[in-house]
Amino acid sequence: MTDQQPIPAAGAEPALLDRLARALPPAALLTGDAIGPRYQEDRRDRFSAAPRFVLRPETTAEVAAALSACNDFGQPLVVQGGRTGLSGGHRIIAGEAVLSLERLTSLGAVSPESATITAQAGVPLQLVQEAASRAGLMFGVDIGARGSATIGGNIATNAGGIRVMRYGMFRAQVAGLEAVLADGTVLNTMKEVEKDNAGPDLGQLFIGSEGILGVVTCARLRLHPAPAIMANAFLALPSTDAALVLLQRLRSALGGMLSAFEIMLPEAYHGVCRFLRMTPPLATEAPVYVLAEIQAGPLAPQAEDMFAATLMAAVEAGDVLDAIVSQSSREFQVLWDMRDGCAEFVRTLDHIASGDISVPVARIPAFLRESQAALREIDPDTAFLAFGHMGDGNLHYVFCTPQKAEAMDRLLRMVTAYGGSISAEHGIGVDKKSWLHLSRSPAEIATLRALKAALDPHGILNPGRIFDPL
Amino acid sequence: MTDQQPIPAAGAEPALLDRLARALPPAALLTGDAIGPRYQEDRRDRFSAAPRFVLRPETTAEVAAALSACNDFGQPLVVQGGRTGLSGGHRIIAGEAVLSLERLTSLGAVSPESATITAQAGVPLQLVQEAASRAGLMFGVDIGARGSATIGGNIATNAGGIRVMRYGMFRAQVAGLEAVLADGTVLNTMKEVEKDNAGPDLGQLFIGSEGILGVVTCARLRLHPAPAIMANAFLALPSTDAALVLLQRLRSALGGMLSAFEIMLPEAYHGVCRFLRMTPPLATEAPVYVLAEIQAGPLAPQAEDMFAATLMAAVEAGDVLDAIVSQSSREFQVLWDMRDGCAEFVRTLDHIASGDISVPVARIPAFLRESQAALREIDPDTAFLAFGHMGDGNLHYVFCTPQKAEAMDRLLRMVTAYGGSISAEHGIGVDKKSWLHLSRSPAEIATLRALKAALDPHGILNPGRIFDPL
Repeated sequence: MTDQQPIPAAGAEPALLDRLARALPPAALLTGDAIGPRYQEDRRDRFSAAPRFVLRPETTAEVAAALSACNDFGQPLVVQGGRTGLSGGHRIIAGEAVLSLERLTSLGAVSPESATITAQAGVPLQLVQEAASRAGLMFGVDIGARGSATIGGNIATNAGGIRVMRYGMFRAQVAGLEAVLADGTVLNTMKEVEKDNAGPDLGQLFIGSEGILGVVTCARLRLHPAPAIMANAFLALPSTDAALVLLQRLRSALGGMLSAFEIMLPEAYHGVCRFLRMTPPLATEAPVYVLAEIQAGPLAPQAEDMFAATLMAAVEAGDVLDAIVSQSSREFQVLWDMRDGCAEFVRTLDHIASGDISVPVARIPAFLRESQAALREIDPDTAFLAFGHMGDGNLHYVFCTPQKAEAMDRLLRMVTAYGGSISAEHGIGVDKKSWLHLSRSPAEIATLRALKAALDPHGILNPGRIFDPL
Repeated sequence: MTDQQPIPAAGAEPALLDRLARALPPAALLTGDAIGPRYQEDRRDRFSAAPRFVLRPETTAEVAAALSACNDFGQPLVVQGGRTGLSGGHRIIAGEAVLSLERLTSLGAVSPESATITAQAGVPLQLVQEAASRAGLMFGVDIGARGSATIGGNIATNAGGIRVMRYGMFRAQVAGLEAVLADGTVLNTMKEVEKDNAGPDLGQLFIGSEGILGVVTCARLRLHPAPAIMANAFLALPSTDAALVLLQRLRSALGGMLSAFEIMLPEAYHGVCRFLRMTPPLATEAPVYVLAEIQAGPLAPQAEDMFAATLMAAVEAGDVLDAIVSQSSREFQVLWDMRDGCAEFVRTLDHIASGDISVPVARIPAFLRESQAALREIDPDTAFLAFGHMGDGNLHYVFCTPQKAEAMDRLLRMVTAYGGSISAEHGIGVDKKSWLHLSRSPAEIATLRALKAALDPHGILNPGRIFDPL
């Protein structure tokens, strides 16, 4: 985005702009200088072309009218939410117009009876979390970009984050949704009932499909009881094998109360503490650090004691070198702020590459050993700063080397050999297209193309995301 | 099935039979007298035509070969699992061949690390439950037909059952699946990792789509920790309003530990006790009965006391007239056997009709009052024997009247007016097609048709289920 200035709506069909201007209120259509640079923003500062024009509908009917017009003219669109995506799906490809959902910001009241809330696509995740909290409930998904990332984008990428082991991914939070197809058809699966098997649930199509099949405009989201008890601990461990043993200990002792199990390699840990100018919570040097969290209901008051006792047993067994259990909500938050800061910290480094990979949890120790050896073969000075969600097998595998492309390719092939996924929670977007075949078979890709052709025959929705048009 | 004898494979293309005979082992293809009457069986004894021939593949490759051949010849197929469906999706329409998954019976070992098990489509649900149990885990879905209903059919209908409020429907249990498209293309989304967002999860397409988009051949299923505590109670209540209050009391006190909340109207309760020749657990006459269950982990030992105390408080407040809490695993099982027996009992009655409906939980009392008044307008002697899953809004709305068709139509229109679903967990199949428009919009039906055309262009898979071919 940095080296690119918005340009007038060059190339846009005048007849299309006329139709859009007639169909939409003035605030819903930006052209020329009115556009400004923000639609070209990208967290990783990669190039994003100037848009032909920008659509900013305020209602589902306006989304439908905008899509219908663009469909008739074959005008390709990139759908934008909070532009926090990490695979480039929101970046503008030359010739595209932007469909921004930033003005779809209606957030309904929490329904205490059904424990749900209805949010339009442009509502930031954090507002949903806060509304749930005010109603004495909680929302199950949390990610670092909560303040900017929107519900629409979260659904389009099936966002995961730190508490998947307790609450599942975004799909598990969606009780129903509204989506608009390329031709303006509006589908609405938001019923107040939990069970509705009168034919397939078409809403599932749009979860995790990165906007290529339709535009999610609204969703009915499930909420959970707020935990009566939350506690976390930061731990220094002698090895990733020990981390695996600790995970199994905590799972056995606490079952579903174990809500997060995050790992950090030492360079990530020390780096983020420097970056945040905070005193490291543990001074002990170790090859791996873990942030573990539990959540429990009011009928399990001894959960916290069990958590502490399990950690103590792990220290005595030598699986944990040093541990600090948070003693206040402030200390609890400081540990999570440190974890949250990792993503921003690593973006300050040179030659950074980041694989959002998953491998079977039990194979993480072997995978880390073998992949680090393989990447050091390419560049012996490669720095490793992985952090992420070990509890569900998902690592943000950050490394620094000038030989990024070769190293990433080697890494992702190894992920596949380990039975993992080359994109656990960030999607494919534009940046990972060339590796899609490592996680999806030719039959799957052909089937996805058939669905795309059936629902978006002119290929106007997020073209070139996930796969290139034929 | 009763009045129908199998006939030879009349009408089947000889060239197709030749190709199938070459592609498949002899046991995988039945024709003529070898077929026998079983493929025409139906729980509700409705007519099922004789099949042209029967395919009984033993492997996914055989399923693919069979489908590819039938696709090339345009031979329509009905996919059969345990034939326990209650919407007629498995009944044979004249001209169809049967694709039975009865020989896909491989059941993998439980993986304790990932808490999953892999089962082929023809495995009965009960075998999965038992395998989980032997490994110290549990499977989240239970239904009365567990002994015959198969995993493939459970997935195809997104089965729900008695513990949806704690574990969700079948969709929530599926970590990945294998499905074969009409042309023989095999899709496999079974990875050992929990998080895989490298493009959409195509497996979701086949959950709840009743076999019209592809044939599910195998699935990787999630398992849960076995509860350390299980308890249930049977309760007589003064009204359905009181049942709603009780549900809210139990939810507040026990949260997610409340695992079932089943309702029975008095004619269902007394009838099933007579049918099973058992002493009714409560002698108190009441307009509504509830079977409630809790499940808790080892860290919530006081869950049982809280359950009993909450029921006691409800008795004192007048929301419960009489209560019996099971005191042994035998008593626990007797209560569930009574509940399980309801479906079989009501099938013995004359003029029975059954709506598998859901309405928002909070509106159930009003819905029952209003719908009973409406059906009595049609026939003042209508008998009401509803039972089912009040906790998630799903009632098996059983009633007896000679004016079934008119009454059912009135009932389902009222369900829609209440914001409910005309099929909560039994699917649409053949029997509910004429009411599909009450729960699905023209846009949804058109979209579903587009998906069907994209994935099964010759319309060979379960044609005429959910909707009629155009």
